[in-house]
Amino acid sequence: MQALTSRLAEKNTIRLTPRLFATTSLSLFTIGLSVHYIRTALTSRSSLTTFSTPHGKSAVMSSSFKQEPHNLLVIPGPIEVSDEVLYANAHPSVGHTAPAFAAVFQDCLKMIKQVLYTTSAQPFLVAGSGTLGWDMVASNLVEPGEDVLVLNSGYFGDAFADCLEVYGAKVDQVKAPIGDRPGPAEIESALSQKKYKLVTFTHVDTSTGVLSDAKAICAAVKKVSPDTLTILDGVCAVASEEIRMDDWGVDVVISASQKGLGVPPGLSVTVASERAMAVLAARKTPVTSYFASWRRWLPIMQAYGKGQAAYFATPPTNLIWAFQASLRAITEQSPSLEQRFALHKESSLRLKQAVNDLGLKQVPLHPDASANGMTAIYVPSPLKPSDIVPKMLKKGIVVAAGLHKDIKETYIRVGHLSITAIDAKRGDIDRVIKALQESFAEAGWDGSKTSSRPSVVEHQGQA
Amino acid sequence: MQALTSRLAEKNTIRLTPRLFATTSLSLFTIGLSVHYIRTALTSRSSLTTFSTPHGKSAVMSSSFKQEPHNLLVIPGPIEVSDEVLYANAHPSVGHTAPAFAAVFQDCLKMIKQVLYTTSAQPFLVAGSGTLGWDMVASNLVEPGEDVLVLNSGYFGDAFADCLEVYGAKVDQVKAPIGDRPGPAEIESALSQKKYKLVTFTHVDTSTGVLSDAKAICAAVKKVSPDTLTILDGVCAVASEEIRMDDWGVDVVISASQKGLGVPPGLSVTVASERAMAVLAARKTPVTSYFASWRRWLPIMQAYGKGQAAYFATPPTNLIWAFQASLRAITEQSPSLEQRFALHKESSLRLKQAVNDLGLKQVPLHPDASANGMTAIYVPSPLKPSDIVPKMLKKGIVVAAGLHKDIKETYIRVGHLSITAIDAKRGDIDRVIKALQESFAEAGWDGSKTSSRPSVVEHQGQA
Repeated sequence: MQALTSRLAEKNTIRLTPRLFATTSLSLFTIGLSVHYIRTALTSRSSLTTFSTPHGKSAVMSSSFKQEPHNLLVIPGPIEVSDEVLYANAHPSVGHTAPAFAAVFQDCLKMIKQVLYTTSAQPFLVAGSGTLGWDMVASNLVEPGEDVLVLNSGYFGDAFADCLEVYGAKVDQVKAPIGDRPGPAEIESALSQKKYKLVTFTHVDTSTGVLSDAKAICAAVKKVSPDTLTILDGVCAVASEEIRMDDWGVDVVISASQKGLGVPPGLSVTVASERAMAVLAARKTPVTSYFASWRRWLPIMQAYGKGQAAYFATPPTNLIWAFQASLRAITEQSPSLEQRFALHKESSLRLKQAVNDLGLKQVPLHPDASANGMTAIYVPSPLKPSDIVPKMLKKGIVVAAGLHKDIKETYIRVGHLSITAIDAKRGDIDRVIKALQESFAEAGWDGSKTSSRPSVVEHQGQA
Repeated sequence: MQALTSRLAEKNTIRLTPRLFATTSLSLFTIGLSVHYIRTALTSRSSLTTFSTPHGKSAVMSSSFKQEPHNLLVIPGPIEVSDEVLYANAHPSVGHTAPAFAAVFQDCLKMIKQVLYTTSAQPFLVAGSGTLGWDMVASNLVEPGEDVLVLNSGYFGDAFADCLEVYGAKVDQVKAPIGDRPGPAEIESALSQKKYKLVTFTHVDTSTGVLSDAKAICAAVKKVSPDTLTILDGVCAVASEEIRMDDWGVDVVISASQKGLGVPPGLSVTVASERAMAVLAARKTPVTSYFASWRRWLPIMQAYGKGQAAYFATPPTNLIWAFQASLRAITEQSPSLEQRFALHKESSLRLKQAVNDLGLKQVPLHPDASANGMTAIYVPSPLKPSDIVPKMLKKGIVVAAGLHKDIKETYIRVGHLSITAIDAKRGDIDRVIKALQESFAEAGWDGSKTSSRPSVVEHQGQA
């Protein structure tokens, strides 16, 4: 171990080194499934370069891997992923209990908390999609027969309610009209009529592009029903919209890797407050799931949180390496997290203004209810999404058709998340705007002929 | 579309082309979430080479990507992954509802059935680990209060039983001594005493290296309790052990990407027979999970099975590309599937013989009960696993320590799956044998001094 430590010391320009020193003191047999020569984390050094970030830290990135040329993917997830993240996703196999991997996992647990401005919450990083986070909430925090309030701003509210009912919750919903979200008065009124175990809301509903006011919802719950846990479905919001778990009092954030977090899909990312974990600890009936059981995952996450490995089910190792690469970009490199949110807003406003200038309406009814990571655009009759989407494709740009069942054939969706939103050098936003202008023109749409050119403030839903 | 079709025709040396032609006839809006310029599947052509397989088909592989040098990972999963598979895991982002991606998904659904020799069973490919397959079986095929028989040959039998009980099953177990598996007489006796909805067994228990006789178990069930469904946990068996679903009458095979299937972890691979799907269709109570619900996934898998996309939860797109790359190697390239099983046996026998020659005992009590994809080796007292594993690491080889709680500190585990077992040019098996010989010698073990040099037939468990 002495020789290894010396060898590591020679490589101290590589950021992982301090942690690697720490891991050398771990018992190689703490868990006993497998161990791994610590040098592994350094094998990539031939292709690594070290550079300084605005925070004065150094960071590591691959200098050589370039992904294949491809169409620009601007649906609201999966999204464009950086070369560094894809390269990390092609990391050579490393055992899930290897100290080098445990250090990467530990890093991810630490950084996802930074993204959510929490010091005390417990992340769960598990192979799965964002949907698995619903099962986690429903099977860990609700006992059969308990009441849950779902604030519904689109398709994902309906689906989360379905999931809650599968695990025995009695669900009430406050449903907003399409393009809107439940208002504070409605929320307070609903909360004052019944004692709810949880209130859930979709921070950004990917089906409508509607943004909920997370801070205001938390404040309303705290005021009217302080024992109720607040569950934020942030699959299409984390890392593109500001979420301050500790300050606002969010109890659970549900997310996934493939949207603002900038990683290919396959990693369920759910973070639970101490209060939520206390509710789990106090439940009287057994947890109603196995793979989604936080009781089974908690010791595993706690071990990895200390840089040690433990086993319940195999983690998606390569996605964890990829997640580390993306979280480093988010938390340690330029732009800062705060700048990242501002850049998402800026890109979003620019795209939405261009949509307005084309005389097109958006699904969200007012700017406050508009997500910063996606734009849902009505295709004015008699045009249909099928008149626009293939024209965008011919220009090498992939946008999404509709999803919400009531308006599915009347609108399209454009995602502007992560590198597409924040890296101006890529020119993604400009390309998308130009392609939208050309595609609508080719389809015969002349925005100047609309009787009014409504700003986003004046939009009315078409459903 | 005419122009696109012509362009595709020019590229007809690329294997995907026939399918791409087919996908051009799909409605771009069948599902409506997003569509994708079909050209995407061809963007990689600059780095692709076409070559013939033993079956006379052509196949595509990357000619340039090489993974970083790293330690040889020979734990029983995750395992060494080929450059082609890792490169596919770094595929540029493609939408989960894009025709090009749907074609890849369709390909995977078709090929995993070939691996399991079934024409009629229904695969479910979902983001998750192998453990998620237990939740699928427990929540879809068992109604609360129904009886299940678990044939237990190690840690994973205990854990599967836990999972079944979470979803309300009443579980009986036939437990074999460590190193053995329940025998046909015990199984028949248990089955004749009670009517079981399911009988489950672990084909290869990763904690002990014990191989169950899948064919004999199926025959026993068919003979004594033909209505009982047979569930094969094949996480550490699929693609390294022969499994003939249709011929033997296996009703569900549960697996995951990171062992014999040769892909990084994160993809749950579960395949259900028509009989199992009929049992699901006939259940009287609701399915007791959401993310693991086959009712919700079935229309999605059926759509992808036709090369069309559908949405319930986001699939792990890059792992699906990687899975396709690995399944092509397994089903279309040399060696054939039958040769692959034979090569796993050959590598396994060679390693096990070397272990015998060292005077070391194995956990499985007899050769018929020994897996072909892993070897569990007792470390003779007073030596401990911690005397061997770090010495292997120093030689750049990662083996696993023990897992079964009763014998954890007395044995080590070596995986020999996929490319490590079948690609002699890699020399992995020779390296492992040499490193084992040297490591035991360095630890002071002199195999020639053992009173007898037991063959694998004479092994006795030490628990």
